[in-house]
Parts: sequence; C-alpha cells; structure tokens
Amino acid sequence: MDRLKCPFCEKKYLLDLINPFCPECREPMLISSPRRPRLFSPGGGLSLETFRDFLPLDRIDRKLSLGEGNTPLVSLHRIRKKFGLPAVFAKNETMNPTQSFKDRGTAVVVQKAFSLGIKRIGTVSTGNMASSTAAYGAKAGLETFVFLKEDTTIEKIRSTGIHGAVLVKVRGDYGALFHESYGIGRRHKIYFANSIDPLRVEGYKVTSYEIYRQLGDRAPRRVFCPVSSGGHLIGLMRGFNDLRKEGHLTEMPVFVGVQASGCSPLVRAFEQNRERFRRAPRARTIAHAISNPAPPAGNLVLKWIRETGGRLVAVTDREILRAQKDLADLEGILADPASATTLAALIKLARLQGASFRGDSVLVITGSGLKSMETLKHQKVTIHHASVENLENKLFDFSV
Amino acid sequence: MDRLKCPFCEKKYLLDLINPFCPECREPMLISSPRRPRLFSPGGGLSLETFRDFLPLDRIDRKLSLGEGNTPLVSLHRIRKKFGLPAVFAKNETMNPTQSFKDRGTAVVVQKAFSLGIKRIGTVSTGNMASSTAAYGAKAGLETFVFLKEDTTIEKIRSTGIHGAVLVKVRGDYGALFHESYGIGRRHKIYFANSIDPLRVEGYKVTSYEIYRQLGDRAPRRVFCPVSSGGHLIGLMRGFNDLRKEGHLTEMPVFVGVQASGCSPLVRAFEQNRERFRRAPRARTIAHAISNPAPPAGNLVLKWIRETGGRLVAVTDREILRAQKDLADLEGILADPASATTLAALIKLARLQGASFRGDSVLVITGSGLKSMETLKHQKVTIHHASVENLENKLFDFSV
Repeated sequence: MDRLKCPFCEKKYLLDLINPFCPECREPMLISSPRRPRLFSPGGGLSLETFRDFLPLDRIDRKLSLGEGNTPLVSLHRIRKKFGLPAVFAKNETMNPTQSFKDRGTAVVVQKAFSLGIKRIGTVSTGNMASSTAAYGAKAGLETFVFLKEDTTIEKIRSTGIHGAVLVKVRGDYGALFHESYGIGRRHKIYFANSIDPLRVEGYKVTSYEIYRQLGDRAPRRVFCPVSSGGHLIGLMRGFNDLRKEGHLTEMPVFVGVQASGCSPLVRAFEQNRERFRRAPRARTIAHAISNPAPPAGNLVLKWIRETGGRLVAVTDREILRAQKDLADLEGILADPASATTLAALIKLARLQGASFRGDSVLVITGSGLKSMETLKHQKVTIHHASVENLENKLFDFSV
Repeated sequence: MDRLKCPFCEKKYLLDLINPFCPECREPMLISSPRRPRLFSPGGGLSLETFRDFLPLDRIDRKLSLGEGNTPLVSLHRIRKKFGLPAVFAKNETMNPTQSFKDRGTAVVVQKAFSLGIKRIGTVSTGNMASSTAAYGAKAGLETFVFLKEDTTIEKIRSTGIHGAVLVKVRGDYGALFHESYGIGRRHKIYFANSIDPLRVEGYKVTSYEIYRQLGDRAPRRVFCPVSSGGHLIGLMRGFNDLRKEGHLTEMPVFVGVQASGCSPLVRAFEQNRERFRRAPRARTIAHAISNPAPPAGNLVLKWIRETGGRLVAVTDREILRAQKDLADLEGILADPASATTLAALIKLARLQGASFRGDSVLVITGSGLKSMETLKHQKVTIHHASVENLENKLFDFSV
C-alpha cells in the first residue's frame, strides 16, 4: 500500500489522492519511496515501463498511455559557441503527446486512478496541465473536469475542450479555487490532480532517469528548470536522488530553479535567506506558465535547494525573450517563455561565475512556443514581399 | 555516389539536388537504392542511426538532429470499440520536433546538405514544411529561404520566422512558384527541398521501419495516409518495399491514400481508372495541409497504388471534423484535419467492406491540431461559468 510522507515533519499517512497536504505542516506531501531493490528494465517500450521499479505503480497499462516520455536530449552546440560555454543540452519536453512535461505526471495519475477504479479526474489549470489532463482523461475514458481562469483564451478553451472535458470558467480567487477543488473532489469523488499532486511528481522523476541514461549513465553538473508550483523541480530532484540512493551516482547535480523577475517569490526568499516564501504582491511577466504568486510546493523547493547547494534565479522578460529567440534561431527549438528562462538563467550564472563556471548543463524545455502564440508577437520577424516574376531579383536584397 | 532514378522510365541520373524531376518524363525522381546488405542497427539512439543502412547518408551527424522520429504507435482501443473495428493504431507524427512528419524528411535533407558543404536551403510551403525547414536550417546554421503564400496567417509567419529564416510572401501562382524555386536554387546555390524532394522521401521511409519494429517485426494489414504532394505516401510505400526486398516481409500492407472531397484529383483519376490525374479545378476543404490541386508526385502515387492493390479515398469536411473529434475525445490525440482524414477513410472503408474488413490498420497522424487552431472553431465546445462560491452547486448541472 502506497504511503504519503510529509517532507517537513516526516510523518507518514496512507495514500490519500484527495488530500495531498500534511494535516500538521500544511505542506504538500510526497509518495514514500519503497525499500526494495530497483532496477532499470530494458528500454524500447514506454518510458514508464523502463523505470517501473522507481514508480508507485503495480502495473502499467499500455492502453492508458499516449506515448509520453523518451524525449530527446539535444546538444546545443551553437548556443555553447555563441556564449563561450561548457556543454549545454536541452531536454525537450515539448515532444510529449500534448507538447509539455505535464504529460509525464498525468500519465502516472491516470494509471493510478484507473487501477483504483476512479472514474473522475480533474485539474485547476489554464494551460499545459489542462490540455494534458483532458487528453489523458479522454484516452482512459474518465470523466474529466477542468477549472479555468476567467481570462483563459478561446484557443486554449478549444484545444482543451475538444477532448470532451467538462470545462468551467471560474470567477474569483484562483488560489482559493485550488484549495476548494480538493473539497469538491472529496465530496463528489473527483481526483483533482493539481500541479503538486504526489503522483505527478513521481512522473517527473522519470525525466531525470532519462537524462542520466542519455548522458551515458551519469548526471550533468547542473539542471535548470522553470519553477511555477515547484512540483516539477521537486520531481527532478527526487529522480536524481533515487539514482544516488541506488548507488548510480556519487554526486548530485546542482539544481537551478528559475522564476521570472515579475513573479519571483521563491527567489526573493532564497536571496533573503528565509525558510518560507511570501506571496508575491502581483505577477507581471510574459512567462505565464510560471506566473504563480504562491507556489504550493514553494517552501519545499526552498528547503531542498538549500540542502543540496542549488540556486534560485530570476530573469527579466527582456532576458527571456532574448533566450527564446536564441533557442529558436540557433538551435531550432520553439520554447515558450517559461522554458526560455532556463537559458537566460544559464547565461546569467555563467557570466556571474566567470572562469569558475565549469561542467555541463541541462536545460529542461517544459512547454512549446506554439502554445503561447500571443507572446511570439514580442519577437521581431521580418517578412518580405515579392511576386513570382520579380522574386529572384529581389531575393538577395532581402537576405543581406 | 548517390543516383536518382525515374520511377516511370527507370533511367538513372547522378544525384542532382537542384532538379529532382526526370528530364524526359517530368516526374519526380527517387533515390536509387543501393545493392548492399542492409541491417537494423541497435536502437536507443536517433531513428536515423537505427536505420542508417537504409538511407543515402554516409554518416549521421548528431549535431544536426533535433531528435526526430521514434514516435509512438498508439493503440486506439476506444475508437476500435465504438466502431466495431479490428485493431487500429495511430502512428503519432505530431510528436516530432516541429510537430509534423516533415521533420523526418528535413532531417535527411539537412544531413545531406551539410555533408556536401551546401550553405543555403529553401522551401516553398506555408505550413508544416516551412516551420520544419526553418527549424532544422537554424540548428545547422544554414541560410534558409521560405517562400510563403500571400494569405499565410500571422501565427504561421511568427512561428516560422522566429527561427531566423528569410521569409518571402509571394504573389501569384503558387504552382508556378514551386517550379520557379528550382531555377532560383540553381542560379543562387540554394537547395530547395520541396515536398517531393527525393531526400525527404527517404526520410519518410523510416516511419515504415519504425511501424514494423513497433508491431513486433511485422507489417500491418493497412496503412492510411493523407495525400497532398504524394511524397509522404511514396516514402511510406518505399519503406515497406525495402523491408520486403530485404526478406523481412512476404506481404506488403495495403496503402490507402486519403484526400479531402473538396480537393481530390488523385481519387478522381483512380476512380476513373486513369493513369494521369487532372488538376483539380478549385480546392475547398478545411484540410488545408492536403489542399493540393496538382500533386507533384500524383502520377507516381496512382501508379504505385494500382500496382500494389492499394486505394485512394476521398472524405468530406463533415467526416473529417467528426473523425478529428473522435480522435481527440476518445483517444486524446489532437490531430489536424488532414490527419483526421485517415480515421474518416478507415470508417468509410470498414462500412463499405462489412464483414470482409479484417486485419489491423495504422493511421498516420501527420500534423497537430495546435497548428491549425483556426479549424478548431468548427468543433463545438461547451464552456460553463461559475464563481468559486457557487461552483460546487452548479457542477453537476454541467456534467450531466
């Protein structure tokens, strides 16, 4: 039987999908890791199957999977050269079924829900988590509820709604809605798998295992990850920590959590050496996917980053847009602004540390620029005009 | 040295990247396959590496790759059940780096261009091929030219333009522009890799090899693929034919090429038993990605479909929209209308053939619905409204 453990008071509770918060500390709890030998299974199948020993799933049902994971780790040669950096890799999570890292978490959520006979799932999200949950809920034939912010764009509504979820635009405080969803879930038997859901976090661990295998069974020196709720970074850290506990690693990577300057409650707490973050007064950044003024796993991120010698870094919208352009223009990767923060932070850190900046870095590209088209208008694009007849004459005026 | 071979007159020519048409037949030529033993390499790396023996590349340079291929083959249980069908699988090509099958072709194009010291590439496309070429051109550091239709939307311009390509909106006949591009390419040393480029076609073969491996080293009974220029289907057919020639298969799959009723020049020729297609008078369909009134590889598609006992099928916009909805709602796959034609055609064929419709089918999902957001407005989506306070009371009015 799976158990949840509070990472603060270390008390354990039976797995309760409806309430993942510690009754005493009010912090999000995590799945308590089993004490059995854990091996890598032969690859070639689903990523969940390769790393099944590390997951709280008794069996993996292929018919619930959309083929998540096994995303490429791409070497960024041209960025490395431009900025004079040691090796840099992108773990391209936009190549998941619904184009974001969320699918890894949703995949584990749906496996567990299905195995427990749960018929209804839900989530509070306006972005990547909404479409991921709707898609996986559809695949599994579950009734799926998605609570959206009032200002959600029609494009996001359409691409989520086509999967047949019950969509509700909710007026009022979105933070209150997050907590309210658990009460609604309890009373109406809906498993609300929100951003810091402990099974989601288990799914994110798999990204770390994949990076380890893709680097030839070693960890990188640094892992950069955007931080919104904190669940993703916690999952990545747990993944490498699993590898350490199993004897695969002697040294953990340095984790760098990145926020946008316009909404950086954790960076502020980190810089001021506080154990608890304070809610950000207002969020103002183009990186909507990480515009979270009160990250539910924020205190846990602060604790673990401090314990492991990691960093929390803020980058400005201007730096984000430049990094987004560099990823697209030099490396062919169309990242959303939230993901582009990782490159901006890498450049910032490398400049800060100068010659002492050594070893390789992995940037986790969490979501696709295609899903935040509205932010692409900040990127300058030149478009030329010609006719079939005068095209050739005009062509090289354009290209110089 | 690679050679091109005309599939009609069977004459061979030295590989000429600038002019892939037979000087006599005016039909697109294909790479002449080598007569050496061809083996599968161990998996785990790039898909191009696993099947390198089957490709006209002397070496594969990882730094030019965005991690294309190795896409999932997903079993469509719920669609199967709804329509009472034998096994159905989706080969989800939307999980490529720029969310379409085009990346497989562009990857081979760029490998070859780079190895030959070519510094400039180009393409004539308004859609998936444009963004794919721009992304891979950026990764390889090549100067990239993209010729767009005049009515290309600002979203497509932005998501292609961010990769730094020279974008030109061209007034006039787009078919003429296609042929004109080769002349411009010759005079200015730009390798225009358009839809039926022989190296692109080589890249599409890899999809067939992957399907074969994913099914446990066997071919499916049927492969459904949308047909625009015809290059993709030709590549898939060549791929399975390679496997047959190497002794891996005794029987080829039945290939079903699908067009939209509003633009179906090949289906008309097929039904009227003509060897050559006639240009469609006008194109009117929501499946923009296959709205091609004069497919450059159309006559070759007709020839091979007839020789192998395949089919060409047209489906209406209404059938396409319903199939798009079923893929999203039952299987969690957000396909563009062009890709959804494959499911529409499968259902049509199964109904037509009744009890004699046996064996498994693979639907090739070529592009993402995210990239044709404008067509999603044809799908009905219900959105509910509530406040945090009254959400719970209203919730089950919504879901029933």
